[in-house]
Amino acid sequence: MDMKAFFHPSRIAVIGASANPDKIGYSVLSNLIEAGYEGAILPVNPKETQILGRPVVNEVADLPRGLDMAVLTIPRDPVLPTLRQLAELGTKSVVIITAGFKEMGREGFYLEQEIREVAEKNDIALLGPNCLGLINSGAKVNVTFASGTPLPGNVAFFSQSGALCQAILDWAVGENMGFSKFVSLGNKAVINEAHMLDYLGRDPDTNVVLGYIENVSQGSEFLNKARAMSRKKPVLMIKSGTSTSGAKAASSHTGAIAGSDQAYEAAFQQGGIIRVRDIASLFTLAQAFSCQPLPQGPNLAVVTNSGGPGIMTADACERSKLHMARLSQETMEKMQGFLPSFASLHNPVDIIGDADAKRYKLASETVLEDQNVHALLILLTPTATMVSEMNEVADNIIQLAGQTDKPIFVCLMGKHSIAPAQEKLVQAGIPCYNFPEPVIQSLEAMYSYQQWRNRPEESIEEVPADRDRAEEIVNGFRSHLSPGRSVEIVEYQAQELLGAYDLPAAATSVATTSKEAVQAAEQMGYPVVLKVASPDISHKSDVGGVRMSLQSPEEVRQAFLEITSAAKYHEPRAFIHGCLVQEMAPAGMREIIVGFHRDEQFGPLLMFGLGGIHVEVFKDISFKLAPISRSQATDMIRGIQSYMLLKGVRGETGVKIKAIEDILIRVSQLAIDFPDIVEADLNPVLVDESRAIVADVRMTLYMSHSQ
Amino acid sequence: MDMKAFFHPSRIAVIGASANPDKIGYSVLSNLIEAGYEGAILPVNPKETQILGRPVVNEVADLPRGLDMAVLTIPRDPVLPTLRQLAELGTKSVVIITAGFKEMGREGFYLEQEIREVAEKNDIALLGPNCLGLINSGAKVNVTFASGTPLPGNVAFFSQSGALCQAILDWAVGENMGFSKFVSLGNKAVINEAHMLDYLGRDPDTNVVLGYIENVSQGSEFLNKARAMSRKKPVLMIKSGTSTSGAKAASSHTGAIAGSDQAYEAAFQQGGIIRVRDIASLFTLAQAFSCQPLPQGPNLAVVTNSGGPGIMTADACERSKLHMARLSQETMEKMQGFLPSFASLHNPVDIIGDADAKRYKLASETVLEDQNVHALLILLTPTATMVSEMNEVADNIIQLAGQTDKPIFVCLMGKHSIAPAQEKLVQAGIPCYNFPEPVIQSLEAMYSYQQWRNRPEESIEEVPADRDRAEEIVNGFRSHLSPGRSVEIVEYQAQELLGAYDLPAAATSVATTSKEAVQAAEQMGYPVVLKVASPDISHKSDVGGVRMSLQSPEEVRQAFLEITSAAKYHEPRAFIHGCLVQEMAPAGMREIIVGFHRDEQFGPLLMFGLGGIHVEVFKDISFKLAPISRSQATDMIRGIQSYMLLKGVRGETGVKIKAIEDILIRVSQLAIDFPDIVEADLNPVLVDESRAIVADVRMTLYMSHSQ
Repeated sequence: MDMKAFFHPSRIAVIGASANPDKIGYSVLSNLIEAGYEGAILPVNPKETQILGRPVVNEVADLPRGLDMAVLTIPRDPVLPTLRQLAELGTKSVVIITAGFKEMGREGFYLEQEIREVAEKNDIALLGPNCLGLINSGAKVNVTFASGTPLPGNVAFFSQSGALCQAILDWAVGENMGFSKFVSLGNKAVINEAHMLDYLGRDPDTNVVLGYIENVSQGSEFLNKARAMSRKKPVLMIKSGTSTSGAKAASSHTGAIAGSDQAYEAAFQQGGIIRVRDIASLFTLAQAFSCQPLPQGPNLAVVTNSGGPGIMTADACERSKLHMARLSQETMEKMQGFLPSFASLHNPVDIIGDADAKRYKLASETVLEDQNVHALLILLTPTATMVSEMNEVADNIIQLAGQTDKPIFVCLMGKHSIAPAQEKLVQAGIPCYNFPEPVIQSLEAMYSYQQWRNRPEESIEEVPADRDRAEEIVNGFRSHLSPGRSVEIVEYQAQELLGAYDLPAAATSVATTSKEAVQAAEQMGYPVVLKVASPDISHKSDVGGVRMSLQSPEEVRQAFLEITSAAKYHEPRAFIHGCLVQEMAPAGMREIIVGFHRDEQFGPLLMFGLGGIHVEVFKDISFKLAPISRSQATDMIRGIQSYMLLKGVRGETGVKIKAIEDILIRVSQLAIDFPDIVEADLNPVLVDESRAIVADVRMTLYMSHSQ
Repeated sequence: MDMKAFFHPSRIAVIGASANPDKIGYSVLSNLIEAGYEGAILPVNPKETQILGRPVVNEVADLPRGLDMAVLTIPRDPVLPTLRQLAELGTKSVVIITAGFKEMGREGFYLEQEIREVAEKNDIALLGPNCLGLINSGAKVNVTFASGTPLPGNVAFFSQSGALCQAILDWAVGENMGFSKFVSLGNKAVINEAHMLDYLGRDPDTNVVLGYIENVSQGSEFLNKARAMSRKKPVLMIKSGTSTSGAKAASSHTGAIAGSDQAYEAAFQQGGIIRVRDIASLFTLAQAFSCQPLPQGPNLAVVTNSGGPGIMTADACERSKLHMARLSQETMEKMQGFLPSFASLHNPVDIIGDADAKRYKLASETVLEDQNVHALLILLTPTATMVSEMNEVADNIIQLAGQTDKPIFVCLMGKHSIAPAQEKLVQAGIPCYNFPEPVIQSLEAMYSYQQWRNRPEESIEEVPADRDRAEEIVNGFRSHLSPGRSVEIVEYQAQELLGAYDLPAAATSVATTSKEAVQAAEQMGYPVVLKVASPDISHKSDVGGVRMSLQSPEEVRQAFLEITSAAKYHEPRAFIHGCLVQEMAPAGMREIIVGFHRDEQFGPLLMFGLGGIHVEVFKDISFKLAPISRSQATDMIRGIQSYMLLKGVRGETGVKIKAIEDILIRVSQLAIDFPDIVEADLNPVLVDESRAIVADVRMTLYMSHSQ
């Protein structure tokens, strides 16, 4: 796909151009002309000879070959034939504004599929259908039907919702917010968010990327592109449809299956994408990211002429990941030289109500020089003294920002009397807010992003495994499968599969008679566990199929007979193979749970949590998408709230964290190696300070229709 | 105190009035004149004869007797003598704008104390010192030195931070936000937030009360006034200084001790005050509360012309306490009659991109009639069709709002093209936002407030108790106390004290010899617990002073000897009385913790949590201020996250909640009856499905300097 032709077309045809100002075909043409586009514009309309002063081409067939871009604003039914014509002409990119496809039921769905096929076959960069169009400020391209062209800027925005594009354009025009690129993705038949990340990551005109999505088209592609570019430029994104009713509305809106929100959360985190919850925050953050350097640490200093707002800033700061900087003795002594005696030299530095521009300047400069300070917030209440000094304060701040590589934020508390100074600061690229909380929100996001940038790239260890044996085990179950059906891998074999990946499977034998069971127990050493062995019984405890702490041959024999008869009683149709004899972990080990299930969009989603109430009652679980590195495994373990229980509290010894890391990494590898294992649940895994044992495991194999 | 003279003065003297526009004494006078004050204005200045066209009084002594209000803008030192003169003249209220008192160290602190004494002795309603003044729009009074008078409105605002007052006035003038009363409390020498709640609760011009405080002057007074008025009018308040550095800044700023944030949280909750975290939210909520009826339930319906924003609204709604309304079959069928076939009839109702004013009107009316709908949000993206219809949509919404008692909110997504419609709606009292999230935030607060209003008034049960016996026990320890010192009530006596309040104290005897211990155990029945009995040993386990599960006379005898000798070894100077012999609760009971400590501001703060990791590691604790009603006890129990563990999860039997309620209510009563018990810790209390036992208790008695 020729993304250069898409973003920097040298000639654009507008097919469906209209002389009627109520028509979309008119708006697109007129926006393109008004944007000052300097390439050739070719309006296509069967009847007119001239529209908006431009000569008209009457037939698509009359368009030149190898055109960079054609924009379609025609009715739905001629879209496909027109696209075919354009393909024959070697058109490089096509924007289909027309709606009525996937979003409108079955017929539209199939039509859209044909459109995608034509585009893919002919390598056409196709945007839409059902979109608002796109804007590239640098190339003076605006082929949208929205009213108003935004200012140029260094922020790019793409959105799956056309309405949101319209709202944001309207808002941006009112707020004087500029954009480098502005793309309405529509139904994403071809061009999707992954293409955007890829292109915008390399776009020299873009410093910050903003996106709104309701789903992702290709999970792994998206994650790869995000990983590849997110260290270079910040990506701020909204993923909507997280709630039940939101997801329902989203699926009826776009007809797409969204995948689970945990998987999205994991993908954003692992891809380095900053997830934002609402549009107001998206733009608050964009403003900060686009014009200020990143903070090199979490410590914020505040210089204020008023106590109350300073206190509120400190409160907000401590609710965040940031810290109020502790100023050095030297800084405080220096300030003592020029601040009045009742000023507060501690952070927040209160230079008190009668502060003038000079006092602000001296205090700000001094604080900014302090090595403990990573960012500065200048907080200003329009006191009587201040009102006439405001412009001078603004000028000084602009000068100061030019001399430092630490981020500077300004909060002018008010509206009426601070407006001119605010305008001046914003023009000069100093983020300026009316309340302190958005400063904290922005700086916190910038600090987190800086931490992400400093994090080494994840290196995924290749896990050594006896893959032949593993393949052999799984094949044994595959033979029972037909497309669309699933089968459970029986525990004995599942434990062996774990063993092939060097996972600490509990020593397990199958006994078909009570005698064999006793022999196995003698060999293993007491105590042992007996579990019913049956491919048809999955919840063994429910049928009386588990006995723990068996201490003698007699107990084992007895248990064997009881288990097998109880199982037969509860599940008369089940095939009972006998019993598993399993080593029994010593008392006092902690229970953890490790598992994965395969997400529709993003593949295997690993989960980790503490056994007992922590997972089941408190839902205290951490997730990551496989494959994971060792440091990601560490993050998963530390990511649960009950992590401190593993580390050891109140004088207890902690468990061997490395053993849990190994389990996570190996299970991750297993999930990658066997795409048809759709679910695995190692529950419980028992851990103590020296080792781990997988006490029970369930795995499900599934054959998809495409296999 | 004559609050009528304070808010509706018929004559006002401005002492320190100045002809110099740079002086505060000029600003106050000029604001008062510009506000159109219709009473007599008496500028006081020793030198001038006329200021701003008003004849000047040269001496305070020449002022008329019984003046309603005097405003002081003179330097600090003459403030006290001037106040004395005013008191002699029978002045009813005084506003001291002058700074330099408590906020500036020791000397100022004592000066302020004298000011308070003079005011209290003469029953003067005194505002400040160190404040910006006050505004009463209804009486055309503005005795502040801020620039700009806000519009009249039905929202009152008071603030402990003068700077915040300035910022907000500036902001309000820019935003066209109106106020009924606007009061800068300053140092609160006399008039404080409790007076404000009391007066504003009865003020016919005020519908919504907003406040910013850093501390509360009199905890119980505040709580009582809040309780008395918060069902009549919503009170939205910021309490700052919640963080460590914020609190430090606040105390250096106002010199006041703030009390714990848990106590404030409890006081706000029990007083029905809506706690707000930031100023932007304060005004977002104020706008909604001041002009819309309260929702009668949590169900929101959304009518939108665009999918994306509808989905985001549903997401935000489900993150809140609100629900997306489930529309009735009838409503959906009705809408089918006039909506296009691709519209979504489910909530969010998507009337799709080509919607016009008429479609909005029909859909909004239909949805609003649905009994399942408690509030309506009309969400509008400025599409090409919409732009020209916007005014009509606004008119229709205004009309609709006039015909319903359900709250209606509007979200116009954008800025530029929606401005005129937004202005129109705001003028008509329809809350209008640019993004959906503030709608959810506002409506959620309104719904919570409605629930508060519907909640019956708490009735505190009088707990029957053997108060004479209790008094006797406590007196025994009081005799050991001197002012400023504390003493621990030994467990044996503490258990007896609990018994006097009918609390389920563990049966306990004191044994001074091993023989006595065995006798006690025989009488109680085995197993028993032995604990060292010493007034000097508080952490008994640390000195080997506790033995559980003693099953026989021999074990008891042995334990007695070991405990007493271990205690002597570890604490050679401790007086060892012998051992407590205590009944042993059966295994398997759940541990809970009940206690209180006395908050500086609000008195006894009760706490409740689950034993083990829940309190210590996860800090899962609920708090309330004593005294509490039964329903508040229930709330405390349900207020912890681990409540479900008490109720019983995974098939376990729950514990007897009523027994815990009883304990909370009785401990609350004990805390109220004995103000010198500053701390009590019933830890653990053991509970099962039939009963509770207090297995251990610690109590501390303290004699304050004032006793």
